[in-house]
Amino acid sequence: MSSLPKDALHFPAASRAFLDSYLPPIEQVLDDSSPYPFTTVTFATSLDSQLALSPGTQTVLSGPQSKAMTHYLRSRHDAILVGVGTAVADNPGLNCRIAGVGGYGSEGLEGQPRPIIIDPQARWNFTDNHKIFQLAKDGKGRAPYIITTLSDPPSEQAAILEKAGGKYITLAPEPGSNKLEWRDILQALKAEGLQSVMIEGGAAVINVLLVPEYLPVINSVIVTIAPTWLGEGGVVVSPPRRTEEGKAITAARLRHVQWHPFGEDVVLCGDFKDS
Amino acid sequence: MSSLPKDALHFPAASRAFLDSYLPPIEQVLDDSSPYPFTTVTFATSLDSQLALSPGTQTVLSGPQSKAMTHYLRSRHDAILVGVGTAVADNPGLNCRIAGVGGYGSEGLEGQPRPIIIDPQARWNFTDNHKIFQLAKDGKGRAPYIITTLSDPPSEQAAILEKAGGKYITLAPEPGSNKLEWRDILQALKAEGLQSVMIEGGAAVINVLLVPEYLPVINSVIVTIAPTWLGEGGVVVSPPRRTEEGKAITAARLRHVQWHPFGEDVVLCGDFKDS
Repeated sequence: MSSLPKDALHFPAASRAFLDSYLPPIEQVLDDSSPYPFTTVTFATSLDSQLALSPGTQTVLSGPQSKAMTHYLRSRHDAILVGVGTAVADNPGLNCRIAGVGGYGSEGLEGQPRPIIIDPQARWNFTDNHKIFQLAKDGKGRAPYIITTLSDPPSEQAAILEKAGGKYITLAPEPGSNKLEWRDILQALKAEGLQSVMIEGGAAVINVLLVPEYLPVINSVIVTIAPTWLGEGGVVVSPPRRTEEGKAITAARLRHVQWHPFGEDVVLCGDFKDS
Repeated sequence: MSSLPKDALHFPAASRAFLDSYLPPIEQVLDDSSPYPFTTVTFATSLDSQLALSPGTQTVLSGPQSKAMTHYLRSRHDAILVGVGTAVADNPGLNCRIAGVGGYGSEGLEGQPRPIIIDPQARWNFTDNHKIFQLAKDGKGRAPYIITTLSDPPSEQAAILEKAGGKYITLAPEPGSNKLEWRDILQALKAEGLQSVMIEGGAAVINVLLVPEYLPVINSVIVTIAPTWLGEGGVVVSPPRRTEEGKAITAARLRHVQWHPFGEDVVLCGDFKDS
């Protein structure tokens, strides 16, 4: 047992119970029946469904309990995934600080998820001073895998990644575009041995995922809502409009819903399963 | 005790408890210390903060329990208020169907709130076939008071109102505009002897109210959230952007917050009081 850093977080067992049925099984056995990892989508919004006051800014929405919950959720997934916008704007650590995981009370990297950055054009221009590489160097997190469409990503970045234990993963874009297909991304993660992934944002990633085509590959959704309105003009979670015979219809409806008041916030868990 | 119509609604006592501290006192004594009635703002949204899929359509968002709750809330207020957009689009009844109120198990109109329509230009072109007048004729609701800026509203409509027991109330618009000032509206209601008002929407009304100028006159906010995303392009609740020194800041933050899971939905209660 190594010493516990002072930024370690605690998430009480009593609070864990309500999340358990929405999370990957603790004893993960390699499930070869599905080409995809267990996929959880999670984010925190205001009452007006915003992640932040404006693009490229971090807005503290939810309370300290919700922060500990996010890190607990990270400890329960093999990988955590964000879009390049979030990586560029936030310089995020993307590690897990729950007391007891690797670097936070344990040796090694047990319980530390693999950070995944979706960066089709490899535009994230990081150095080894970026937080994620500092944490990896300090044994407090893993180096990222960056998913790109470029067959020849920048060599300077590739060297930083490799030294830290990360890498670029090149996937072919959708035919006729430079966009990545989400099924391809999820399959690539599974092929890396990652049995579960928690998709954390930002809005561009979430809005693209909450469409009929992808709902079947999402296993769980966990949304934290804070009792504030950020006001018009922020970064909004709202999936593309769906129509049926020319009429607007509900874009996505959660099933097997549970709401859990949590400090000043509420946590909503649900899925898209038919039964 | 008259017979109970089959559309009467029941809202169990156990469910009423969590709302009570956010509602006007049951024993309403004339409170002359405030020029305003007890003002509750209430509405139901999707996860993406929308009231409806598109303007002028009614979207069923919340479950049957939430409907009964709305009617219980109506029974606890002297008046219920909507904007003209809602009146025109929905042909609403704006009565209370909780078992035990006037017309739903009791004689008279005890427990039936006064409908208030905010219609600055008197553009709601109703006849006595409209639902609200049919209900008034059947002893199942009160005729509306319509707040307008016109000193001479349409005489045909005025006659329909008068016959049913309603009226136009003319208020001066804000100087240099044809808009009504919300403090004037609330004062006018108090002057009519209405000790409490529940403001139900639509989005135009709610977004105008959730601004720093008016937060002090709002006593309670009760929001029902359904676990669905309606998708981009619907009718959004999101107050105007607020800035401080050129930077966006949170538009409005609820205090004294309680969340109550309620069937598939959640009900959020709060206020804007400092302490």
